[in-house]
Amino acid sequence: MKDLESLSASQAIKALSKREIRATDLLLSCLDRIGQKESAVRAWTSLGKENALSRAKQLDKGAFQGILHGLPIGVKDLYDTFDLPTSYGSPIYADHYPITDAVSVALIRQAGGIILGKTVTTEFASFKSGVTTNPHQSKHTPGGSSSGSAAAVADFMVPLATGSQTAGSIIRPASFCGVVGFKPSLGKVSIAGVKSLSVTLDTLGCFGRTIEDVGLGVAAMSGDHRLAKIEALHNKPRIAICKTSNWSAAQKETATALAVARHAAEAISKGTVGDIKLSKDFDGLTQAQSRIMLSEMSRSLLFERVHFAKKLSPQLSKQLSEGAEIGYEQYTKDLRHASMAKASVEDLFSNEIDILIAPSATGEAPNIKDGTGDPIFCREWTLLGLPCININVTSGPNGLPVGIQLIAGPGKDHFLLSAARAFALALPDPTLRDQA
Amino acid sequence: MKDLESLSASQAIKALSKREIRATDLLLSCLDRIGQKESAVRAWTSLGKENALSRAKQLDKGAFQGILHGLPIGVKDLYDTFDLPTSYGSPIYADHYPITDAVSVALIRQAGGIILGKTVTTEFASFKSGVTTNPHQSKHTPGGSSSGSAAAVADFMVPLATGSQTAGSIIRPASFCGVVGFKPSLGKVSIAGVKSLSVTLDTLGCFGRTIEDVGLGVAAMSGDHRLAKIEALHNKPRIAICKTSNWSAAQKETATALAVARHAAEAISKGTVGDIKLSKDFDGLTQAQSRIMLSEMSRSLLFERVHFAKKLSPQLSKQLSEGAEIGYEQYTKDLRHASMAKASVEDLFSNEIDILIAPSATGEAPNIKDGTGDPIFCREWTLLGLPCININVTSGPNGLPVGIQLIAGPGKDHFLLSAARAFALALPDPTLRDQA
Repeated sequence: MKDLESLSASQAIKALSKREIRATDLLLSCLDRIGQKESAVRAWTSLGKENALSRAKQLDKGAFQGILHGLPIGVKDLYDTFDLPTSYGSPIYADHYPITDAVSVALIRQAGGIILGKTVTTEFASFKSGVTTNPHQSKHTPGGSSSGSAAAVADFMVPLATGSQTAGSIIRPASFCGVVGFKPSLGKVSIAGVKSLSVTLDTLGCFGRTIEDVGLGVAAMSGDHRLAKIEALHNKPRIAICKTSNWSAAQKETATALAVARHAAEAISKGTVGDIKLSKDFDGLTQAQSRIMLSEMSRSLLFERVHFAKKLSPQLSKQLSEGAEIGYEQYTKDLRHASMAKASVEDLFSNEIDILIAPSATGEAPNIKDGTGDPIFCREWTLLGLPCININVTSGPNGLPVGIQLIAGPGKDHFLLSAARAFALALPDPTLRDQA
Repeated sequence: MKDLESLSASQAIKALSKREIRATDLLLSCLDRIGQKESAVRAWTSLGKENALSRAKQLDKGAFQGILHGLPIGVKDLYDTFDLPTSYGSPIYADHYPITDAVSVALIRQAGGIILGKTVTTEFASFKSGVTTNPHQSKHTPGGSSSGSAAAVADFMVPLATGSQTAGSIIRPASFCGVVGFKPSLGKVSIAGVKSLSVTLDTLGCFGRTIEDVGLGVAAMSGDHRLAKIEALHNKPRIAICKTSNWSAAQKETATALAVARHAAEAISKGTVGDIKLSKDFDGLTQAQSRIMLSEMSRSLLFERVHFAKKLSPQLSKQLSEGAEIGYEQYTKDLRHASMAKASVEDLFSNEIDILIAPSATGEAPNIKDGTGDPIFCREWTLLGLPCININVTSGPNGLPVGIQLIAGPGKDHFLLSAARAFALALPDPTLRDQA
């Protein structure tokens, strides 16, 4: 019965479904761990201990509820929850209780997941840091915006936690914290009930310590339960490395990460794993993503700008002003650019490639006083709406984890999980194979 | 100063911007009209008289605020408003006050629009009727789900009101009430802060008495202010009639409407206006839309199903159960079908056609006891995400209005408004030309 908090979500669910362990004990182990570590990590904005315990007891007595039966889960505080305060990382909404759950939260509960608490997000999932530290080294950032979810999962406080990505808010913190982060295809999980930054970009996903776990999480959040079962690869996939046009931002450890990834990919790939240079359709897509995001944010947070200007951080206020300055014609042009690039990437994935490997971040987690890190290596993939998964492959000069992201064609979420699993099992460091 | 309530939005804004009329007087005229007619029409769920009057006074004294300066506006009660109760057409949320405005409502206010009140929606924008009657004949339905907005605009209670369409909830009530209804391209207006039925389909738009007015409305709601100025057509458009695969559902007056529309279209079209039969890619798209909608609704309203099952109408409960029964593979197949059809329709609009004309509804407004009418002629266009506009062209056996919809290629909202205006000016009945 000891160390239940270190079970992966999938291991825990198997044991729970056979009634080998009780949901109550798993929950208490997680709460114990939180009790020990939270003062340093600060991953949570609120915990719903009593509700969670009463739900766990109910599940221990009752019938098997679903694919997340009895699993404690952290929910990013950008998601509405009817029974836990939801402040979107902003003092404007301190102590706000939404009237409903976000759609994905309702789906998690229906699948038997137990919402243990809310995790720290940066201010409105933007760039102003929250209070969370990197559980590996507290002087470093866990990344943003899904800071608390990534840190809580990395620190064994909870096996699964939800996130959202508009620029790089799942993949980057997953890399910084050394956990698996899964941003599924755009639209896979309903964004209803999650504070909106950009309806064009906002994508929901989750963090786990294994690939199987994040499949399970997104299976529940989306209702696509096929994602809960990862199939073995039928054929060897065609894999290529994409350093992207932002390669000059990559630090040495990111280059190392790609080298390690290439080695593992060679083992499972059809043919050699070469470098791919994206066509001209992709030039400037990072900048287009940035402008679309800022432009939409200036509208999405208009209510807050008008009514609570003084409660917005100077950083965010500045960003919103910049966004409001972007002309609608530029915005439309950027959307058209994205639309063309989407068609182009669909061709690429149909004809040439099955999996791309790209950096997850510029390097290991920066010092916390320098912010939450740069989402530059995620922006274009988010805009393209492709499913992406972060896998930890090496470590940086401070010994912090460094991941890469595997990217599949639009809608190929199921296949991505299969490829990611095969890839992780081919990693040279055997301890990293546990991510599979 | 009399009859201010009968001014179109554009006329009123012109007069307001020149300070020829006061926002306060326009508002009082609308309130007068509501006082006279509301007991029969029942278009409103709440009115915010005091806030609206104080805002009108402020605008009368202050600088020009924006493209909707001083215009009273009705907001469908599916949209969140921080200062007016928002119940989504359901007793579950009676007296609910959201903590923020929907993004589009905040944009309307920023443009100087005055939110006069909330208008009746069917239960969660689904099929159970609200209390609103058709202002032309109270025994008939105004259509749904944007019942109150269409009726309020038709009855001169307000010059402009917002709507939303998941199947046919803007175009159909606009046809039944004889007003202009504009469903812009999917994604044009942010859906954030509007109760979600289906993130794949939900599209926001508005009702007005002229084409210029709905352009103004969507200009403010989206931030795309180019839509506030309708340009003259540069070239004669290629126009075709599309009776769709659902033509057997059309009543006689709908056939008449298409005949009238063909006549008007001939006057502005490049070449003759023939009939177009869509390619096989479009077969079954109506049914695919229906399944996608039901499947997503069963997830979107899961929280309500779990917590408030008894407060859902039997109709809606049944629909949600049906939706929950649709397998995820079928749902995915339908989404892929839609995606292929979107590519195909983009080709069609690039190569062959500029504007399609299709029925807005099966006929004139049915008797109120038979429900809100059938959205069958709107489902596929909504799924395709194309901009659509309803224009009143004739009347049915009971003397009720019957419209047709003009449809343009994806993202061609601006062009659609230009074509719609030219079309309306070519209508044989001179009184109907006032819609331009």
